[in-house]
Amino acid sequence: MTKWVYAFGDGGAEGRADMRNLLGGKGANLAEMASLGLPVPPGFTLTTEVCTAYTQSGGTYPADLDAQVEEALAKVEGIIGKKFGDADDPLLVSVRSGARASMPGMMDTVLNLGLNDQTVQGLAKASGDERFAWDSYRRFIQMYGDVVLGVEHHNFEDILADHKDQKGVSLDTELTADDWKKVAAAFVACVEAELGKPFPQDPREQLWGAVSAVFGSWMNDRAITYRKLHGIPEEWGTAVNIQSMVFGNMGETSATGVCFTRNPSTGDNFFYGEYLVNAQGEDVVAGIRTPQPLTKAEHAANGGVGLPSMEEIMPELFGELDQVRARLEAHYKDMQDMEFTVQQGKLWMLQTRNGKRTAKAALKIAVDMTNEGVISREEAIRRIDPAQLDQLLHPMLDPDAPRQVLSRGLPASPGAACGKVVFSAADAESRAAKGEKVILVRVETSPEDIGGMHAAEGILTTRGGMTSHAAVVARGMGRPCVAGAGEIRVDYKAGTFSAMGETIAEGDVITIDGARGEVIRGEVKTIQPELTGDFATLMAWVDEVRQLKVRTNAETPDDAATARKFGAEGIGLCRTEHMFFDPARIINMREMILADTESGRRAALDKLLPYQRSDFVELFTIMRGLPVTVRLLDPPLHEFLPTNDDEMAEVAEAAGADVADVKARAAALHEANPMLGLRGCRLGIMYPEIYEMQCRAIFEAAAEVQKSTGEAVIPEVMIPLVGMKRELDILKEVVDRVAGEVRTASGVDLTYLTGTMIELPRAALTADQIAEPAEFFSFGTNDLTQTTFGLSRDDSGAFLGTYEAKGIFEVDPFVSIDTEGVGELVRIAAERGRKTRKDIKLGICGEHGGDPASVAFCQKVGLDYVSCSPYRVPIARLAAAQAALGAEALIDA
Amino acid sequence: MTKWVYAFGDGGAEGRADMRNLLGGKGANLAEMASLGLPVPPGFTLTTEVCTAYTQSGGTYPADLDAQVEEALAKVEGIIGKKFGDADDPLLVSVRSGARASMPGMMDTVLNLGLNDQTVQGLAKASGDERFAWDSYRRFIQMYGDVVLGVEHHNFEDILADHKDQKGVSLDTELTADDWKKVAAAFVACVEAELGKPFPQDPREQLWGAVSAVFGSWMNDRAITYRKLHGIPEEWGTAVNIQSMVFGNMGETSATGVCFTRNPSTGDNFFYGEYLVNAQGEDVVAGIRTPQPLTKAEHAANGGVGLPSMEEIMPELFGELDQVRARLEAHYKDMQDMEFTVQQGKLWMLQTRNGKRTAKAALKIAVDMTNEGVISREEAIRRIDPAQLDQLLHPMLDPDAPRQVLSRGLPASPGAACGKVVFSAADAESRAAKGEKVILVRVETSPEDIGGMHAAEGILTTRGGMTSHAAVVARGMGRPCVAGAGEIRVDYKAGTFSAMGETIAEGDVITIDGARGEVIRGEVKTIQPELTGDFATLMAWVDEVRQLKVRTNAETPDDAATARKFGAEGIGLCRTEHMFFDPARIINMREMILADTESGRRAALDKLLPYQRSDFVELFTIMRGLPVTVRLLDPPLHEFLPTNDDEMAEVAEAAGADVADVKARAAALHEANPMLGLRGCRLGIMYPEIYEMQCRAIFEAAAEVQKSTGEAVIPEVMIPLVGMKRELDILKEVVDRVAGEVRTASGVDLTYLTGTMIELPRAALTADQIAEPAEFFSFGTNDLTQTTFGLSRDDSGAFLGTYEAKGIFEVDPFVSIDTEGVGELVRIAAERGRKTRKDIKLGICGEHGGDPASVAFCQKVGLDYVSCSPYRVPIARLAAAQAALGAEALIDA
Repeated sequence: MTKWVYAFGDGGAEGRADMRNLLGGKGANLAEMASLGLPVPPGFTLTTEVCTAYTQSGGTYPADLDAQVEEALAKVEGIIGKKFGDADDPLLVSVRSGARASMPGMMDTVLNLGLNDQTVQGLAKASGDERFAWDSYRRFIQMYGDVVLGVEHHNFEDILADHKDQKGVSLDTELTADDWKKVAAAFVACVEAELGKPFPQDPREQLWGAVSAVFGSWMNDRAITYRKLHGIPEEWGTAVNIQSMVFGNMGETSATGVCFTRNPSTGDNFFYGEYLVNAQGEDVVAGIRTPQPLTKAEHAANGGVGLPSMEEIMPELFGELDQVRARLEAHYKDMQDMEFTVQQGKLWMLQTRNGKRTAKAALKIAVDMTNEGVISREEAIRRIDPAQLDQLLHPMLDPDAPRQVLSRGLPASPGAACGKVVFSAADAESRAAKGEKVILVRVETSPEDIGGMHAAEGILTTRGGMTSHAAVVARGMGRPCVAGAGEIRVDYKAGTFSAMGETIAEGDVITIDGARGEVIRGEVKTIQPELTGDFATLMAWVDEVRQLKVRTNAETPDDAATARKFGAEGIGLCRTEHMFFDPARIINMREMILADTESGRRAALDKLLPYQRSDFVELFTIMRGLPVTVRLLDPPLHEFLPTNDDEMAEVAEAAGADVADVKARAAALHEANPMLGLRGCRLGIMYPEIYEMQCRAIFEAAAEVQKSTGEAVIPEVMIPLVGMKRELDILKEVVDRVAGEVRTASGVDLTYLTGTMIELPRAALTADQIAEPAEFFSFGTNDLTQTTFGLSRDDSGAFLGTYEAKGIFEVDPFVSIDTEGVGELVRIAAERGRKTRKDIKLGICGEHGGDPASVAFCQKVGLDYVSCSPYRVPIARLAAAQAALGAEALIDA
Repeated sequence: MTKWVYAFGDGGAEGRADMRNLLGGKGANLAEMASLGLPVPPGFTLTTEVCTAYTQSGGTYPADLDAQVEEALAKVEGIIGKKFGDADDPLLVSVRSGARASMPGMMDTVLNLGLNDQTVQGLAKASGDERFAWDSYRRFIQMYGDVVLGVEHHNFEDILADHKDQKGVSLDTELTADDWKKVAAAFVACVEAELGKPFPQDPREQLWGAVSAVFGSWMNDRAITYRKLHGIPEEWGTAVNIQSMVFGNMGETSATGVCFTRNPSTGDNFFYGEYLVNAQGEDVVAGIRTPQPLTKAEHAANGGVGLPSMEEIMPELFGELDQVRARLEAHYKDMQDMEFTVQQGKLWMLQTRNGKRTAKAALKIAVDMTNEGVISREEAIRRIDPAQLDQLLHPMLDPDAPRQVLSRGLPASPGAACGKVVFSAADAESRAAKGEKVILVRVETSPEDIGGMHAAEGILTTRGGMTSHAAVVARGMGRPCVAGAGEIRVDYKAGTFSAMGETIAEGDVITIDGARGEVIRGEVKTIQPELTGDFATLMAWVDEVRQLKVRTNAETPDDAATARKFGAEGIGLCRTEHMFFDPARIINMREMILADTESGRRAALDKLLPYQRSDFVELFTIMRGLPVTVRLLDPPLHEFLPTNDDEMAEVAEAAGADVADVKARAAALHEANPMLGLRGCRLGIMYPEIYEMQCRAIFEAAAEVQKSTGEAVIPEVMIPLVGMKRELDILKEVVDRVAGEVRTASGVDLTYLTGTMIELPRAALTADQIAEPAEFFSFGTNDLTQTTFGLSRDDSGAFLGTYEAKGIFEVDPFVSIDTEGVGELVRIAAERGRKTRKDIKLGICGEHGGDPASVAFCQKVGLDYVSCSPYRVPIARLAAAQAALGAEALIDA
């Protein structure tokens, strides 16, 4: 016989905490608390298997369920000493859903179930409080009518409002027992009018109605969509918890409260919570009364205002609660979030669960508990959400400071920044040069804005998504960024932007909160990040555990230095094209592009060589002793050409060319789909002299740094956008030839690798061939996502929202790697690449390298390293450690 | 002991025709002819294994080779009765390379080897012709000096020219024996001066030098590149043929000639060839003398001009040759291309091989030989090159008509066309409406030009490749097209184009030859294709054999009717967007795009519905009884919007909108990479009402045609650009809902399928999931190639040429499917799709469907059908039959 019902209470339980799958989170924890001997109101749980049976049979319960429920109910009646439906002194129960994981859209709670026109009178008599009884009854009708019977809640609110109007009062507390009696009668009449049948008076009918409503809600549209989005199988089902009611609103010896075993905001190991005397949980939520601190210390810290703490008013009960606190934290080995009720001097525990906490608190609690010997270092590592860690790495706005939000956009790059508004990269640079702090505001940004973005404290755009140019570059630079703030209208000509009817002019101060996507008028106080203490301790543990190396994507000395400070173990992606956008250099770059002949191009490249070499010298010096992957020129050449007439004229003059020729060349370079055009290694094949110059700069810089520092940097020359082995064959010859020349000229015994970015499906599929010349693969999952999905990230904004809403994308594939498509190609490429070259070095660069889920995927397919933007290095380190622990757990299991 | 040398001659041989891999093509055929008892000058072949041994050892010969050569040489000496190197009457030999497949870049031939300062005198004496002897010697020095010793041939040409100048003569024939003696001496001196060592006088040294030169040439750069490009393994190696010389230039009883067993141009079963009395093969090639026909009949057909035929002059020898002809054709069972020499009244056969032929001849010969019982139908099918068949399907220029070529471009769509030049689609349509024949000349074409392209006889563009819009559409329509004629400058304003210094104005007549890529001034006579007779016979055989179904890509009634005439078994791709470009409709389409609300869009769609329905009625009527795959709207909406101000204003007026709004909407729809943007099923997800209208049009038309013709058309509704199963889930609901509505309203029991185009790598990789809702997959290999390679076909023109030249692309992947990358995805998708849905229908649409190599690939991976443009249907049918036979052969083996 299947056991469908698990009882708990009276110092014992049939269930346990580890029966979460069967009893749901709430039921399992209630059982566990009861088993620990804690004062839990007795009750029982209908298992998730009942839900499954009910759903699969189309709404029929197992034959023997009724008997098991009756038995459990009788047990509760025995413990409490009251009968369910007893007209003189009724047992009342709550009915609550409780799935394995919390899920929105489910029917949540019905309280006071068991009341009807008769039992309400018994409750009034037994409690000696007629007002309490009728208030409880009308609450039950309202709640049951709404969530079980489907009568819209405004019906009840209207009746109550009318009644108060008639009486000329405004607060519920001003209503008497008699008022509630009338309201309850009106509620019952309303339900009957709405449904065409009377409000159920039979407590058992009420009970089964509530249970069916919970199970039914498992299959409502919102729940189904949510499950689809989060990959939760329908078969999981939800449990239902039926528990005897306790009341915190039975006078001055009753109370209700919520508490945490440690401070969830700071992580300090002090008891923390709030409570209200003579109240129900609902009252706290409704905000009618302001809750008071639990402890004397907290009350004092708040300046001692308001009513005294529970510790002062109910010292014995507080002491009991404090023991429960110690007991539960020791038992669960994590900070607990608990709900309790005191009914006429008796403490009841209604719930416990692991408490939510800030990143700072999470770190402190994990490190403290490890030091206290409660948990292991591995467990401490598992406890920190890598995404949350991001909060700690950037300056953030003081949460207590007032803020006048002008508009909202996407939280594109975390951190807060404040400065004067500028509308062009040039203005950003010139104001910054004068020591002003600026926020660069653009409709969208382009590679030419890089200098201005670097000069700015933060970036705000009105168009583009989480992976727009602005967002990607800002995250890379660690600049806060709010992207795609679509309600803001920028007027470049007027030098203003407007939002919410307000106009902000160039030079006005704004603040942006990149973690929340907020644009705020004026300056808001910020708090600097702290990377020592608990953070440093945990990261040291992380590094002992992880297997994946973590590198950074960086091309400026600033970024490289920041990344090394954050623990980067080399550079995984140095994009050389960003080095050409400097005004002093772009002229030579354009000269090169406009040249008709190889010798013309070589002349211009000769001018670029010293710049590029000195960049590499600086970068290699910072990264000495570590590998640095340099990607040769990748973007289409037209990205370097000007777009307006004035700039065209300027370029023509500088290059000694005709304006018409410059325009013609720019037009000839125009492409229908630049993403799929003449870029990457295709440039190297067409104009080998470009790659030759870049290789020379790399190797000469490596030789110089090796001589000057005595520490070798290991350049890894990366050929982008390879689709066919022969492309790499041809270009590897160029790399090797130049390396040989520099080796001879410098006398330095250079060590280097040549490899490719795997960013085309064809490269992944033919990785066995490409691995013949390639000594490493770096998965460029940004472009690989674009080609695998046939999806331009610049253009996807138009429909990404709809795609997420319709459940087509569970998560933006540019944020977290699509394991089934893009990931499948990574897996295939890793497997085929290793088949040809057993020790081929495999890494991932691009945005995914800093995404924890993607890092876990990289661990799973056995890559050697991930590379991400400097500010995500600690996140990747943590994610890598967790992935390694996850893999270990899998091996252990 | 390895046998390195195979002798032949004197009525026997050690080799056979089927030893092609060991003896090379030439050696195997020489052996075979000798075995047949035909008069082959005796000789021997050094096997391809010698080449491999020589190459792998770095230039050393097997130890026992020398002895085997000496033995074979002695045998030849015995047969001929002369000694190699004999100063009185020397045996002379030719040395020729001969690999398994003919290959450019190899050392070809050295004649007269064995001559030196002594033996030349012996030859003079023995032949009684001093001039002949010294002419032969100087030819040998020149040839050996050039191809074996590497002395540039201009050295020799200069000496000869100087000598003729001194003598004051201009023709070689005016030189005497003494002249040749002097020239030979000067040649020998020249070689010594160039190389710093004397010309080799030892005949054996000469022999081994020539052999080494042949083997060495197997490893020269040109040969290596060619092998890489054509996938020929280095291990194949080449053979060397050493054969006693015979001379056709020993007086009036000597001759030389080339002949075919049947007419290679028409296929007629008559002996066909040319010969010259007293000449060497070289003389024919040099064009110094005009060869004469072999037969009386031919001589008469040519008007009896020039010298008489061989049949008349040497009747006995001709009779002997005619017997050889019969013998060889019966033996090889194919039309032979033979070389012969008559030396002083004796016939010698120097070579035989399968002869090259025109498409018309190929068909006739194959059908005739089958009817003659020589070959089987299967063999007849194998004999026809599908690519060549294309020649027969279009009107072609009379090859004999004079043509003044103005410029050349890519042979983008075969056939010839002639008409007045127009520079816009509108002009093309208006002139065509008046009955004029026009050629549409554009820099490039766009979907808006479709009407004009249809109205034109042919299309000429100055930009774009073999798969540019113009090329693809023209091939689909069967319109001749020359694309990317880059030397032509179009001046739209002036209404002219210029090429080769000439200017052609609107209204001037030009002719284009789409098979050769030529642009010709004026009108050139054309010949119409003939699809009956041999063509019809062979195609009937083809249909018995093939397993793949062949459908067509068509959306106009014209194309559909043409394709059905060519044997199409349904439509594999009907692109519905082309139906919206008609001027009467595009206004409504634009109205739809500009609408802000769903109801606005629905109002515009309601106007489009009748147009689309009537298009389908027409198409389904033509295709009744067959399946028709309709692809729902695919291109980005901005393709339908105007680009210039006038048109914008027109649209605004027609749509009752503000011009500024129209412009803003157009700007909002602009995309950075439209290929990867809001298109395909993404449109259906964003605006389900568009797909709904299209489905309604399809199903209402199907119902109507089924009622009116009594024959059901089977619509296959194809959702484009699906990357995720859920996209198809959502849209299939729309299809099924509308089908249900039409079924109810019409009372017709509609049969239809819903499926998707697999054109994204992600779709291929997750085909197991997508096959759950999809009842068919159609591989859109055009787009799949673009995404797999990350290569826009509109933009690849800039580097495709370089890529082909550097051997990166063996063949344009948009022309023939890339089996390793794109094909791998097709294979994966077919396998995974069938795993989920065993009977899923699999086809390919897009350009590759008409490419024979791609068709063979489709057979290999087990697709059900291919679909191609109407004019390629017969080619695909033939290719499918060959693929089926190929597969059979593999199973047999």
